[in-house]
Amino acid sequence: MSIKVGILGATSYTGVELTRILVFHGNIEIAFLSSQSYAGKKLTEVFPEMKHIYDGVLLSPEEATQASADCVFSCLPHAISAQHLIPLIDRGIKVIDLSADFRISDAGVYESWYGAPHPRPELLKKAIYALPEHKRESIRNGDIIANPGCYPTSILLPLLPLLKSGGTEIEGIIADSKSGVSGAGRTLKLTSHFVEANENLSAYSIGRKHRHIAEIDQELSTAAGKPIQITFCPHLIPVSRGILSTIYFRINKSADECRRIAEDFYANDSFVRIRSSSDLPTIRGVAHTNFCDIAYTQGSGSTVIVVSTIDNLLKGASGQAVQNMNLCFGFEEQTGLLR
Amino acid sequence: MSIKVGILGATSYTGVELTRILVFHGNIEIAFLSSQSYAGKKLTEVFPEMKHIYDGVLLSPEEATQASADCVFSCLPHAISAQHLIPLIDRGIKVIDLSADFRISDAGVYESWYGAPHPRPELLKKAIYALPEHKRESIRNGDIIANPGCYPTSILLPLLPLLKSGGTEIEGIIADSKSGVSGAGRTLKLTSHFVEANENLSAYSIGRKHRHIAEIDQELSTAAGKPIQITFCPHLIPVSRGILSTIYFRINKSADECRRIAEDFYANDSFVRIRSSSDLPTIRGVAHTNFCDIAYTQGSGSTVIVVSTIDNLLKGASGQAVQNMNLCFGFEEQTGLLR
Amino acid sequence: MSIKVGILGATSYTGVELTRILVFHGNIEIAFLSSQSYAGKKLTEVFPEMKHIYDGVLLSPEEATQASADCVFSCLPHAISAQHLIPLIDRGIKVIDLSADFRISDAGVYESWYGAPHPRPELLKKAIYALPEHKRESIRNGDIIANPGCYPTSILLPLLPLLKSGGTEIEGIIADSKSGVSGAGRTLKLTSHFVEANENLSAYSIGRKHRHIAEIDQELSTAAGKPIQITFCPHLIPVSRGILSTIYFRINKSADECRRIAEDFYANDSFVRIRSSSDLPTIRGVAHTNFCDIAYTQGSGSTVIVVSTIDNLLKGASGQAVQNMNLCFGFEEQTGLLR
Amino acid sequence: MSIKVGILGATSYTGVELTRILVFHGNIEIAFLSSQSYAGKKLTEVFPEMKHIYDGVLLSPEEATQASADCVFSCLPHAISAQHLIPLIDRGIKVIDLSADFRISDAGVYESWYGAPHPRPELLKKAIYALPEHKRESIRNGDIIANPGCYPTSILLPLLPLLKSGGTEIEGIIADSKSGVSGAGRTLKLTSHFVEANENLSAYSIGRKHRHIAEIDQELSTAAGKPIQITFCPHLIPVSRGILSTIYFRINKSADECRRIAEDFYANDSFVRIRSSSDLPTIRGVAHTNFCDIAYTQGSGSTVIVVSTIDNLLKGASGQAVQNMNLCFGFEEQTGLLR
Repeated sequence: MSIKVGILGATSYTGVELTRILVFHGNIEIAFLSSQSYAGKKLTEVFPEMKHIYDGVLLSPEEATQASADCVFSCLPHAISAQHLIPLIDRGIKVIDLSADFRISDAGVYESWYGAPHPRPELLKKAIYALPEHKRESIRNGDIIANPGCYPTSILLPLLPLLKSGGTEIEGIIADSKSGVSGAGRTLKLTSHFVEANENLSAYSIGRKHRHIAEIDQELSTAAGKPIQITFCPHLIPVSRGILSTIYFRINKSADECRRIAEDFYANDSFVRIRSSSDLPTIRGVAHTNFCDIAYTQGSGSTVIVVSTIDNLLKGASGQAVQNMNLCFGFEEQTGLLR
Repeated sequence: MSIKVGILGATSYTGVELTRILVFHGNIEIAFLSSQSYAGKKLTEVFPEMKHIYDGVLLSPEEATQASADCVFSCLPHAISAQHLIPLIDRGIKVIDLSADFRISDAGVYESWYGAPHPRPELLKKAIYALPEHKRESIRNGDIIANPGCYPTSILLPLLPLLKSGGTEIEGIIADSKSGVSGAGRTLKLTSHFVEANENLSAYSIGRKHRHIAEIDQELSTAAGKPIQITFCPHLIPVSRGILSTIYFRINKSADECRRIAEDFYANDSFVRIRSSSDLPTIRGVAHTNFCDIAYTQGSGSTVIVVSTIDNLLKGASGQAVQNMNLCFGFEEQTGLLR
Repeated sequence: MSIKVGILGATSYTGVELTRILVFHGNIEIAFLSSQSYAGKKLTEVFPEMKHIYDGVLLSPEEATQASADCVFSCLPHAISAQHLIPLIDRGIKVIDLSADFRISDAGVYESWYGAPHPRPELLKKAIYALPEHKRESIRNGDIIANPGCYPTSILLPLLPLLKSGGTEIEGIIADSKSGVSGAGRTLKLTSHFVEANENLSAYSIGRKHRHIAEIDQELSTAAGKPIQITFCPHLIPVSRGILSTIYFRINKSADECRRIAEDFYANDSFVRIRSSSDLPTIRGVAHTNFCDIAYTQGSGSTVIVVSTIDNLLKGASGQAVQNMNLCFGFEEQTGLLR
Repeated sequence: MSIKVGILGATSYTGVELTRILVFHGNIEIAFLSSQSYAGKKLTEVFPEMKHIYDGVLLSPEEATQASADCVFSCLPHAISAQHLIPLIDRGIKVIDLSADFRISDAGVYESWYGAPHPRPELLKKAIYALPEHKRESIRNGDIIANPGCYPTSILLPLLPLLKSGGTEIEGIIADSKSGVSGAGRTLKLTSHFVEANENLSAYSIGRKHRHIAEIDQELSTAAGKPIQITFCPHLIPVSRGILSTIYFRINKSADECRRIAEDFYANDSFVRIRSSSDLPTIRGVAHTNFCDIAYTQGSGSTVIVVSTIDNLLKGASGQAVQNMNLCFGFEEQTGLLR
């Protein structure tokens, strides 16, 4: 069986990663790729390394909204993404949005963090916040798949099983996250200039400023059944890809108990690997894969420390998006993602 | 005026950095460099890049303990360092120890963290924990200068002014520190192999395991007048040099108040730069300098977040050691350190 | 159809890369992995990132020589490789040797470059120097597959079609090659220490010193029908993987003619991509793939300049080895290698 | 003695490097810094790491041309540089131009490589191509100092002594140069984006295309007394700073003879270090210094191979510019440059 798939914003880092996965997936026919900046060019003119892999011509986003497909991924920035996906949703096409536009179920919260009202608030309730290990059934039946953010994926996967486990009391969550530069996209900016980012490490948007807080708080609060607000400090590290989150919280369980809860929860999940505190996750261990590696370590007093790693372009974006597509269309969940 | 200076362990990264500073200092005559591994060779045979800078022959550590000097630096590992410095101390030579051997004033605490009894415990009370911005007068009169560790320097400089300020209540201190690979030394080990460290980020010795905790707890507790125990999570980042510490704590003061306390405290200190929370310190901003850059930002609730950066080989080791030597011998504190 | 495959030296960088490819190949059953240093341990104890991928126990090399398999790869160092492969060859098992032990057809040349006599010189004539694009039929029927070296692959692929083309006169070949640090292996050495290799670039074994010269000269001379001796200057660059060779020679053809010859020669080869001189190959364009990218540019006078790139661990080692295995066993040549 | 110095284009990488050197030089009073993009701002608003070092306000280039100074450096791009320097030259101010505008003595050659006529061709004959080790006397008396390009410095320093030595015959010069990304400046472009440059190596403008060829050919031809045309292949490497040039040529002298000629020539030059072929220059050995390291190795036949390294921002730009200023104003040649 084969389905026809399109990609909006195919010339972003997540778009080209997604293209590469889909070309070798085995059950996919690429219906179209689109690009605002490079419409009319061949993909190989923008990414010569795609020669012998995919050599189609890029549509404009406007042409793309008219094209035929069973499933469309969007790698567009927020606001622009919803604008281009809504016509497709209206035509009954399943969409998988890598932007934040369908991640926040409350339109007011969306507006307060993203600075503009949502163009179609009623769709927010239909969208699935699609962390596959936690929403498998909803995703299988979903039409609007909101692919989680990269930082949130690395933070939610270790915390959600604890919150869903009976009798857990957690407070004072601090996430100190470190991301490779591809997380900032392919757009030119001084902080992504090689000479500025290389041999450097910098913090940014620390405290309660980064937009990913909205979806992290939302998912944690839902799982806990009460409001949770995290302190979140992202850092830029001089690697191309990968996120490591070090997460601190006070909890009424030991690190060992946390580990066992997570091991049980993820016992059948091939992409989540619980590791021991003597063998901490690293970015190198997950780079170029769809894995999320997690370990729990005891801190001082009731503090437990999580170290969690993903590849921001795969489990944090395009890999997870394909995992979601596989669920939506009844393919093996791992298809195209093993390497 | 000129003094004669020797360096034990000169072929370590801190040793060669120190040599370079001292050669161009202007008031220093190098009396000797020593090396266990390379004794009898010229320094330029080990570090060809020192050609035209310093071309002396390396003594063995045993020869060095007999040599004449006004001041001797030790870049030897702990335990070995004390063993080689004690004969020099007994001969009345001022010593500046970059190892941990004279940092811990309590011999029992030293033994519990470093795994062996101190070879001359009574000297511990005479040694100065030499953070120049906090111990200037003691250092001027000191004979045994315990140069602080790299991580501790980055953590203590932002916290000590707060603890010394009246009415401060701090709890739950967490230091999430990230260090360049030179912090692990020049000894070969798999975690320092390029292919393992490059495009990677890893945590190690997290919780209450890293030896630097001993001196951090000691200095914080002294300043606070009560016991403090931090949670400390060091990480290895793919840069050659530099440390960024992100420090979290709950405090009865706002981030702005913290910043003003620090600005007042360091008003006359040329090597500490308080920066605003909209202009966070970076490793690149301090690399190859003796500066420590610090900013205070508000987290959620009563949490304040510090970002602090140093060059681990300079303000975190050899630069601070020269700053201490300048104080000991009455030179301008900045001599040899401005660039 | 499925075959049983073993790997000697599985805990090297090429070994673990090979394991990963074979696990997801689809037609392979892993019969065994062996390791001198880690025999008796699980692979995941050495490489935790192989969790959920392959969790078998490592045999000793001695146990491995007794094991049953249809095909055995060797990732052992030269000399040791032949010693362990010869018993397998004698038992009629097909072997694919990633070391240099079966690459040199003349036993005297082998001895002069590798410093010891070959343990079974008569096997050298049976071995295939297995560059698949140039020896496809021999490889299909071969029993001893000598997988080419990484530098030679990047140098031979652009030059061989020119030499095989009628009327070509080439002289003064200089190969200025740049390799990532994984090319030096996982063994600890100072030049592979992160602090030494990072922010650095160095040349080594330049002129006529590097052992890869033996096989390059051999293959070029065979194709040219007369002796060729190249000047070869390898450099170490601060990347984990990838080789870029810049090759200079004087030739009686223009760069455009060279390009057309190569395009014709490789017209049906999916892993060789001829690029235009306005779109030069990069390491990033081939990293993590089995491609070799090549461009020809006019230099001054009759000089033509080639830029050629491969991933040293894939097309330069484990990827090419699997390509050869696919040929040997009648699988699609690209199986397991597309991504 | 102290002189007043201004810098045009102070917010480029070379400008800020120059500022840092001059602040700590000891004989310099900074008269002004200028910047097109940031005029009116403090330098520390653009480069927070300059806090406690230099905190002046940036002039516009127009204001700068009216300012008073003994010496003005230009870090502006070519064409713009001459335009702003000519009024200063007319006012009798000594200028040191880091752009190419005064490097080419033949106005026709300048126009053919730089695409526009020179604004004041008659000044070209008065300008000194200021490689201090080769033009010391002219520089002392010069008014228009054309600071050599970074690549040319690394290529000319090893070759000029050979050409100036009696009876030398050289042909077929090929320079394969590798430069850190700061050589491409601080302007945003895709090839300088971290994700594009990191874990990558790429060649560009290869053959006879790069503008630095003009000054290299000019200086080599002058020294040889006959026309020389080199083949030049620059590469971009993933380091922030540093150039390594590997240079190949056929010569009627052995590598050892070449080395001895260079050793004699540079016997009294503290910034040129001739190294043996068993101890090849590296970028790490010269980074953050004003040194040029050079070694000569025998290739095949009459080919000699040079490896030469500099820091592109120091000996290749701002360091060499200060060395030239020191000569012009009678300071010790090394002042401000030792570290």
